[in-house]
Order: sequence, then C-alpha cells, then structure tokens
Amino acid sequence: MVRLKCIIYYDGSQFSGFQIQPRQRTVQGVLEQALKKMHKGESVRIQASGRTDTGVHSFGQTIHFDSPFQIPEQNWKTALNTLLPGDLYVHEVEIVPDNFHARYDVAEKEYRYYVWHQKERDVFKRNYYYHFPYHLNVEAMREACSYLEGRHDFTTFSSAKATIKGSKVRTLYEVSCEKQEERIEFIFRGNGFLYNMLRIIIGVLLDIGQGRREASEIPGLLAAKDRRLVGETIPPQGLYLWKVKYKD
Amino acid sequence: MVRLKCIIYYDGSQFSGFQIQPRQRTVQGVLEQALKKMHKGESVRIQASGRTDTGVHSFGQTIHFDSPFQIPEQNWKTALNTLLPGDLYVHEVEIVPDNFHARYDVAEKEYRYYVWHQKERDVFKRNYYYHFPYHLNVEAMREACSYLEGRHDFTTFSSAKATIKGSKVRTLYEVSCEKQEERIEFIFRGNGFLYNMLRIIIGVLLDIGQGRREASEIPGLLAAKDRRLVGETIPPQGLYLWKVKYKD
Repeated sequence: MVRLKCIIYYDGSQFSGFQIQPRQRTVQGVLEQALKKMHKGESVRIQASGRTDTGVHSFGQTIHFDSPFQIPEQNWKTALNTLLPGDLYVHEVEIVPDNFHARYDVAEKEYRYYVWHQKERDVFKRNYYYHFPYHLNVEAMREACSYLEGRHDFTTFSSAKATIKGSKVRTLYEVSCEKQEERIEFIFRGNGFLYNMLRIIIGVLLDIGQGRREASEIPGLLAAKDRRLVGETIPPQGLYLWKVKYKD
Repeated sequence: MVRLKCIIYYDGSQFSGFQIQPRQRTVQGVLEQALKKMHKGESVRIQASGRTDTGVHSFGQTIHFDSPFQIPEQNWKTALNTLLPGDLYVHEVEIVPDNFHARYDVAEKEYRYYVWHQKERDVFKRNYYYHFPYHLNVEAMREACSYLEGRHDFTTFSSAKATIKGSKVRTLYEVSCEKQEERIEFIFRGNGFLYNMLRIIIGVLLDIGQGRREASEIPGLLAAKDRRLVGETIPPQGLYLWKVKYKD
C-alpha cells in the first residue's frame, strides 16, 4: 500500500460541507466516489485535516488515503481530476510515509475570511464574500485582532452546540485585518480552531468596526468563557481554509 | 402610468436563461414575481433589450415596465432589490418617457467573453470564465477580430436552429481580444447579434489561436453563409451582456 497526501481546492457553495453524509453532496462523498471508481468498486476512506462547513471554501484542505496502486504523483493528479466535478480540484498529490496522518500531524492551519465592504451588493461575489454595507473602523478591528493573538481559552467564541468536551484552549499565531479598496481580508493562523470559532470572532470584529463594542473588551470576553456574551455566527461564504502546515 | 427603465445585473449560473418559461427559474420570471408582489398580485410584464441564454451573465441588461406607482427612482431600486434573490440585482432605475422601448430603441449592444487561459482549472472561476488550457496565438486571434468588424452577413456564425427568417446582416463596431496574464477578454460592440453568434465566433477565434485555422479564412467563411463550415458553439459561462446603448 502507498499513502497519498493531496491538497484539494473546492468551491464550497454547492457542497453540504466536507464530511460524508447520506443523501447529501459533500466533499468527502464526491472524493471517495471518484476513488472508488479508480479502485474498481473498492471503497477508499479518506482522512482530512478537519471538516469544513457548508459554504466554506478551500485553497488548502489536505487529505490522505491509502492505495495499492503504484503510479506516479502527476498521474494520480490527472486521473483524479478527470473524475472530479468542476467545483472540486486536486491541486497536488504527494507520496508520503505510511505514518503520515492528515489530521493528527497538523502543526498549523491558516484560514482567511473575505468581506465585501460596499453599499451595493455584487451578484458575482455573493458566494465568495460576506457582503457588509455599513461603515467600519478598520483601525479598531485591527486593535481587536491583536488582543486575540496568543494562547487563550476560546469558549466564548465557540459554538454552544460543540460536542467536544475537551480543552478550548488554542494558540493563534496571527490574527490580522487588512482593507484594500472594497475588500477586507482577515487572516488567522493557529494550532487549531474550535467549531464556528472564526465565524463568531469575525462577527465580534465587525461589531467593533461598527462601534457597537470596544476593542478593549476582548480580554474580558475571553476571560468570561460565555458564548452568550457575543453575537451571531456570521455566514460561511467568506471563509476559506487557506493552508495546512504539517510537522516535518 | 409611469414607464420605468432598469439596468439589471445577474449571475446567470442558476437561471435557465432570461425568458420566462413554465417551471423554470428565469430572470424574467423572478423579476416579474417581485413586481407582482409590489403590485399586490397584479401582473406586470417586463420588456428586455433581448434574451440571454442559460449561464450567460449580465452587467448591463436593460428592461422596461409600466406601473401606476408614483415613487422616486431610488425607492424603486431599494424596494425591488429587497425582493430579489442574491444573484439578481437592480443597478439603476430611471423614469423614462412613455414611448421608450427596451428592445426597439436599442442603438448598440456590448458583449464580453472571458477565457481563463491556464493549464489548471480554477474551481472559483468555473461559472464565470471559459477554461482553455491549450496554447493560443493572441496575435492571430486579433487579426481575425479585425476581419469581423464592419457590416457582414453572419449566417455562417449563427445557430442553424434560428427561427427568425429575417436578415442576418449585422454591423460590428468593435471586435477585440486582449490578454492580461491568465485572462483573455473579447469585446464585441454591434447594432445587433444573432442567436449563438458570439459563442460560435469565439469558438472559431480559439481555433485560429490554436493554429487550426488561419485568420485570413474569415472573409471566405462570412461569404459562404454556411453554419456547417465552423465548429461548435462554446459554453455560455464566459459570456456577459455588458452594456446596452439607446438612441439619443
């Protein structure tokens, strides 16, 4: 058996998220179907760096699977892409050691979130940006970002529905916010992210940008460990899993 | 009654074209449904500059309709956009004289076609560009464009299925082709376009770019008036109705 690591791109708009589910079109489902076809009806299970929700996009989702085929990496890439639909693409295939694991060996993940900051909505951006038509103070949002960097318990910023009972402590290496014309880009790099954490955080950052909260409230919100203190989870279509880094 | 002219934008991906059809989601159907809601159940018929096919986008489609409501243009725009889905947007509303007609008064139309010219396909561009991974000689395509400008009978470049028995003579004021990094932009301005004409022409231009035909064949193809001499109609997703100009 050979272990293969793939970096995959997808437009999340038409997928019911990453994880396989009966009667739903999911990234995992479509990928495993293509692999099954290549393996003459034999099921092949894939492991990913983590799930992504409905509507979330990927420029860097990483998966692994095992196969008995001894074929070169480039041929794997071509064969898989021939079987995949237009909204799912294998960007890179690499043969890796048998003990590589796409989830357990993650060292760092990067996510980005894009806001389209203009009064008028744009029909061509609706699936790829979160449209936000109100005034925003980017300086205040930047200040708030700096409070989020570092090692914190992110209970306040994670879904109350989360079933995982483990630690909610995560380390964010970078939290930034940059505006270029109508586009606002948020970058998050960290050792892990809780369920819905980024979409809750960005909601709070936009509250701060509108002056409905102060940047300096962030440390208190983190310390309170209470999801009810912050606003709604904002829409998924601006969110991109951008890169997954592994322990060498 | 007041006559209103609107410039509308749409992402054609999820519409079965412009023209209303039973049990299909069409631009006209969705617009007329919104207008019916505004008019308390009263049907309002719209007239457009022309149809667009399934998958074709708009940055300039222009329509008109009549209404008994005496409300300012900006309020029309807000009211309509509140009722429209994310892939359809009213960009401009203008009160016009009663004798204005969105189809009969067209002086000039501009269409653009976008090709994504790169080896790898891009999951985020699949609905907005035509992906073309092979070598192209842009100079040869440009030369071919110049042969298409002017007044010609475009029978060779129109759908054989076309039901209109009228003249196939049209005047193209501009036909151009420009490459910027991976993006190739074709611009067409003319007094009118036949059914599928642009998608057939661009197919031929791409044949020329690949060296499968010579630019100098264009005058002969035009003179032959025979659809069978040229290749297939290429996909709609790169095509945009860009602008409609009216008399005076």
